[in-house]
Amino acid sequence: MLVEVVAVGTELLLGQTINGNAAWLGARLVEDGHTVSAHQAVPDVHEMIVDAIRLGLSRADAVIVTGGLGPTKDDLTREAIADVAGVGIAFDDDYARRLDERWRSRFGSELPVSNFKQAEHPEGAERLRNPKGTAPGLWLDTPDGPIIALPGVPPEMQALFTDEVAPRLRRVAGWAGSRHVVVLRTYGLPESTVDERLGDIFEVSGNPSMALLASDGEIKIRLIGEAGTETEAMALVGPLEAEVRARLGSVVFGRDDETVERLIHVGLAARGWTVAAAESMTGGHILERLTGPPGASEVVRGGAVVYATQTKVDVLGVAPDLIDGHGVVSEPVATAMAEGVIRRFGADVGLSITGVAGPGPSGDVEAGTVCIGVAGPGGTRSRTLRLPGDRERVRRYAATAALHQLLGALREWPA
Amino acid sequence: MLVEVVAVGTELLLGQTINGNAAWLGARLVEDGHTVSAHQAVPDVHEMIVDAIRLGLSRADAVIVTGGLGPTKDDLTREAIADVAGVGIAFDDDYARRLDERWRSRFGSELPVSNFKQAEHPEGAERLRNPKGTAPGLWLDTPDGPIIALPGVPPEMQALFTDEVAPRLRRVAGWAGSRHVVVLRTYGLPESTVDERLGDIFEVSGNPSMALLASDGEIKIRLIGEAGTETEAMALVGPLEAEVRARLGSVVFGRDDETVERLIHVGLAARGWTVAAAESMTGGHILERLTGPPGASEVVRGGAVVYATQTKVDVLGVAPDLIDGHGVVSEPVATAMAEGVIRRFGADVGLSITGVAGPGPSGDVEAGTVCIGVAGPGGTRSRTLRLPGDRERVRRYAATAALHQLLGALREWPA
Repeated sequence: MLVEVVAVGTELLLGQTINGNAAWLGARLVEDGHTVSAHQAVPDVHEMIVDAIRLGLSRADAVIVTGGLGPTKDDLTREAIADVAGVGIAFDDDYARRLDERWRSRFGSELPVSNFKQAEHPEGAERLRNPKGTAPGLWLDTPDGPIIALPGVPPEMQALFTDEVAPRLRRVAGWAGSRHVVVLRTYGLPESTVDERLGDIFEVSGNPSMALLASDGEIKIRLIGEAGTETEAMALVGPLEAEVRARLGSVVFGRDDETVERLIHVGLAARGWTVAAAESMTGGHILERLTGPPGASEVVRGGAVVYATQTKVDVLGVAPDLIDGHGVVSEPVATAMAEGVIRRFGADVGLSITGVAGPGPSGDVEAGTVCIGVAGPGGTRSRTLRLPGDRERVRRYAATAALHQLLGALREWPA
Repeated sequence: MLVEVVAVGTELLLGQTINGNAAWLGARLVEDGHTVSAHQAVPDVHEMIVDAIRLGLSRADAVIVTGGLGPTKDDLTREAIADVAGVGIAFDDDYARRLDERWRSRFGSELPVSNFKQAEHPEGAERLRNPKGTAPGLWLDTPDGPIIALPGVPPEMQALFTDEVAPRLRRVAGWAGSRHVVVLRTYGLPESTVDERLGDIFEVSGNPSMALLASDGEIKIRLIGEAGTETEAMALVGPLEAEVRARLGSVVFGRDDETVERLIHVGLAARGWTVAAAESMTGGHILERLTGPPGASEVVRGGAVVYATQTKVDVLGVAPDLIDGHGVVSEPVATAMAEGVIRRFGADVGLSITGVAGPGPSGDVEAGTVCIGVAGPGGTRSRTLRLPGDRERVRRYAATAALHQLLGALREWPA
């Protein structure tokens, strides 16, 4: 099915909220074999919401609207959907009563009157149970396809989509065909070089199709095959994947949801090892990524953010002579930090980073200079990088580079 | 001016990239007194890009397109703009030569042929210099308003917008009127309670207008006044701001770009104090936020991510008896962590967090349970929270809660 995603909320247009819902829905819809026609984001203005839903229905088979279902006066999605469908607004007495009871038992006070708005819905719409909040989702069939409304709060939207909307969309789609998506994750080559190496495959593409996606220093290669059955779709993608891997070699580090941090977890768990990290200029971002996936406590001991130079000495035991002799941003200091964090946190493997995020140089070290160290049972290794861009970009790219340095070491060290 | 923002890129629709550019542009356009009509995101398909630009021009005074200006075969923005304007494609020989020379001097090899695409542009378009990359921006005047194209890479897009596009848009707008925007930042009350307290102001609104925006546990209240002059616009917003502050009291913690981390920096710097943080379940997110703003090295010493229980003892010196007696997720342990991180990192103030992010409980402690500790010259304080939601949401909300606990202490402690 072709699905259009419409986000409602003036805060999106003002840039006070980033539209992460559209990305999340896009990924989930593609997984289920649907295609997203386009995203729209419109303000809390009745006519704009109506126009966006109409445009979506005119070019897609279904429209999903996020946001505008809350209890406040600028929550207008219910009325807009009713207008598009040419129906009135109904009130669910039962739901209003349950809402009131739940609020009383929880807060011991009366439900704010505005919350009763959540008991309203377009006539003929089905209410979809929200397991994480009070605003239900809505499903309204129209001659041009279903209009589906979900709350804008991400966890509520995600739970409702997964539990209620995805199964219904699959049923409505009833498509006999299948779609197979493979994402190859690469690190270490610029986008234009990857493009040159794969350029002639691009020429012959169509189905299967191929696209390059750059993000935070990694390049993803997305392959899609479409055919009558899952087996046929996989057979379309298989040879293309093999060809890409042959041309790029070890630049391809993972596939599909094998992010660098997940692969690090796998590499550590396979050997029964743990890791600790020592960061300065990334300020906690490496540790946040390492501890992101569930189950992180099995392999991550923790680590130190040694932002002030003296803390590198006090907390990690880096020798002051080393810092005076080589400078705080140097490979010997990075290596000493990696060794120190192993001792301090009782880990098997240590990862470290020291550098200058900017803006502007620190002493005579230019912004973007980064030294990475890895220490562990297989020895030590260090590396110096010069990263372009502003403070925030340098911090993100440096964290990615450090995680890849660690993954590379884990893959080369004997088990 | 009314401006429409169009993002180009199949990766956006597939959810592999989040459309942060739209949010960034929205915030900057509003700052300059423009209004954003809507966002659209469309795939790398010629007809869809053309339709999106046409729709934008039909309802806005200018269209900004991001993405699709790179060197690969699925970069189609140049051709789409030419089609909308009914012009051909021109080739800039000079630019191509400079591109080639720069590549040779930097990489010592020939420019990949595909990169010459970046020397193409719609006839009549002005090329805008990209200070951070090779793809220039484009500005093409049409009878329906200017079409502006910017690269999709965020730092390049941001630099080009700031240097080249914003000043031109202000000139084109030439509007005599002014817009004054105030954002009041609140923490500690749920959205529906804030809405109830301010509900009757909503009734009378229009100009000045008011909206509530929820993000990661904070609620922002945006006030906008529009008038002939900046002074008149400010005079519209002033009394409304005073009324909101009177009704919400200390729940309002900051204004405009006074984020909680910036206010912590200010509070510390004013007393000449430094801070260190000890985190477990937030895994580095608190430290990342504390070290985010430039100048963080003046007030942040660093901190420890003590993910494994034993590291709380080894690194921070938390007494094992305390952990055995009260459990690792407890206020006494949080306080001991805050005191320990002060000692270990040589800071004046310590912030700590210990909890369970989930999924699922840890021992007999339920997911979402969080203890926060603050220690410093004004004494110690601790607090226990129960946060709803999934692992990622719990981690983000817990970090926000911890930062507010610290800000609250800084504001109450005598200087």
